[in-house]
Amino acid sequence: MKTYKELYTRINQEIDVLNLHGKPDELYEPIRYMLALGGKRLRPVLVLMATDMFDGDINKAIHAALAVEVFHNFTLVHDDIMDKADLRRGMLTVHKKWDETIAILSGDLMMIKAIDLLCETPTSHLKHLIQQFNKSAAEVCEGQQWDMNYESVKEISEQDYITMITLKTAVLLGCSLKLGAIIANANTEDAENIYAFGKNIGIAFQIQDDILDSFGQSTKVGKKIGGDILANKKTILLITAMASVDKNDEQILNKWLASNDPNKANEKVNEVLNLYKKYNVLQHAESVKEKYLRLAFEHLNKLTIQPERTTVVKQTALELMDRMS
Amino acid sequence: MKTYKELYTRINQEIDVLNLHGKPDELYEPIRYMLALGGKRLRPVLVLMATDMFDGDINKAIHAALAVEVFHNFTLVHDDIMDKADLRRGMLTVHKKWDETIAILSGDLMMIKAIDLLCETPTSHLKHLIQQFNKSAAEVCEGQQWDMNYESVKEISEQDYITMITLKTAVLLGCSLKLGAIIANANTEDAENIYAFGKNIGIAFQIQDDILDSFGQSTKVGKKIGGDILANKKTILLITAMASVDKNDEQILNKWLASNDPNKANEKVNEVLNLYKKYNVLQHAESVKEKYLRLAFEHLNKLTIQPERTTVVKQTALELMDRMS
Repeated sequence: MKTYKELYTRINQEIDVLNLHGKPDELYEPIRYMLALGGKRLRPVLVLMATDMFDGDINKAIHAALAVEVFHNFTLVHDDIMDKADLRRGMLTVHKKWDETIAILSGDLMMIKAIDLLCETPTSHLKHLIQQFNKSAAEVCEGQQWDMNYESVKEISEQDYITMITLKTAVLLGCSLKLGAIIANANTEDAENIYAFGKNIGIAFQIQDDILDSFGQSTKVGKKIGGDILANKKTILLITAMASVDKNDEQILNKWLASNDPNKANEKVNEVLNLYKKYNVLQHAESVKEKYLRLAFEHLNKLTIQPERTTVVKQTALELMDRMS
Repeated sequence: MKTYKELYTRINQEIDVLNLHGKPDELYEPIRYMLALGGKRLRPVLVLMATDMFDGDINKAIHAALAVEVFHNFTLVHDDIMDKADLRRGMLTVHKKWDETIAILSGDLMMIKAIDLLCETPTSHLKHLIQQFNKSAAEVCEGQQWDMNYESVKEISEQDYITMITLKTAVLLGCSLKLGAIIANANTEDAENIYAFGKNIGIAFQIQDDILDSFGQSTKVGKKIGGDILANKKTILLITAMASVDKNDEQILNKWLASNDPNKANEKVNEVLNLYKKYNVLQHAESVKEKYLRLAFEHLNKLTIQPERTTVVKQTALELMDRMS
């Protein structure tokens, strides 16, 4: 069984030799730029890891892994336009470095290239593979649209939040694992369970991400604490707080939500954090996270393969949760 | 053999019952809106027509036909953002009726749905089908990027123009016919020749479109004459004129290209038309159009099927050229 590090190295090697050249340059250069920005390569690694886990040949899963990575980067390029984001991994976003037209079109082309890569998978299950990929891809778009919709809604329910992060973030992790399982000819139940494992882990990851943005240590998290609070982002923490506060604290919370004075940024973060602490928002978020982690591992335990074959994926999930904290 | 009208009716029936529902509404409503705008349904009709021509079962080609139509509409939604277009077929464009985020995302979803539809094709050539579709889809993106690039370039060559319209417009017509041929199990050479027929017809169509915008009768063309001239659009007419004018006329042409005074719109159209006439620009454009028409029919004549089976597609091409004039 290959480790995360080994699979990660393999993915980066494959990305390095991927032919992403063509004319006009304005269309292909942003694709190479995005893929060179790096990152954990979590999704493609999960594809290979699942193939390996189900005793398949990871060489046969490379194209599907690359497809998922290219697709993921396509969503980042388009999301950055919608979010008006200037930077990604400390580098200019595509629509900032080039322009919006180029960002729309090179994103479109990345989506097409993703399907192209997927088609290269040597498998008798190609139709199934593409259909699963398409289903998750459509859900990622739906999740992004819910996220956009919720920006202009004052209060959303925890269920709405969970649905949104499931679609926007979690299903692609489940999909990555399932694609790897399909390529390894895993049986239908195993493929569903590894999908459910990935999806539920993905929900837990996102909740952890929300928690760390408000309660992490900036040195470990690698970014300034409180960014979500300053942006009024509807995290599970804010949603829980809004649903819990009494009349008086509701006014305080609303006052800070209405404030975008940069001179009061620190004060805003501290005051909102105080409310989070007063209403045990962190504890609630942790308990929801634990629920989804538990669910994930329940699905992992249902797999009909030898338990030791799940060691790497289990360890990966736990290390990722840990590395984030 | 089915006529254009019969196939057109069938396509519209299929679009009417296509399931394009989902949540959030903001994402799926624009897709239904775009597909309900109507039009000639040229591309999906060509898919069915090719299947019929090669003696295949058009029922097996329906999903591929719908895939091409959904893809084409996806490109329209994204192009309208880039072109800052307010209206399409007299109705508000998606980014105007909703917003840009919705236009980007619902476009993305249409691309995914197109692949999904294509996957439903009952064929043993699915991989080939998707790869051909992807190749043409990527080329359409490349064509749009060239078009955008050329907006800020003073002069382009006729070859650049032909390459641009080939990618942006013509390849998808060739692709539509080829998909239909593949579904009907046509042999490789026939599939290539019908592709080349469609592509060359597409180039001729676009040249005809350029010609009519400057030299058509507004009552027949259904729009005001001279729109391209007012927008300084790099049509084959303008490109030819720029390459032909003497020093003195170059100054006159440049003066009008620099003018966007709405009070001088009629004068601009008339003066540029005068230069077009002086330099026999129309005759040149007609001869280029004829060259591609001839090329198209040469490929049609190479098909190894009974000549009478090509009657409908031949008639369709000629009627479309005629209807435009």
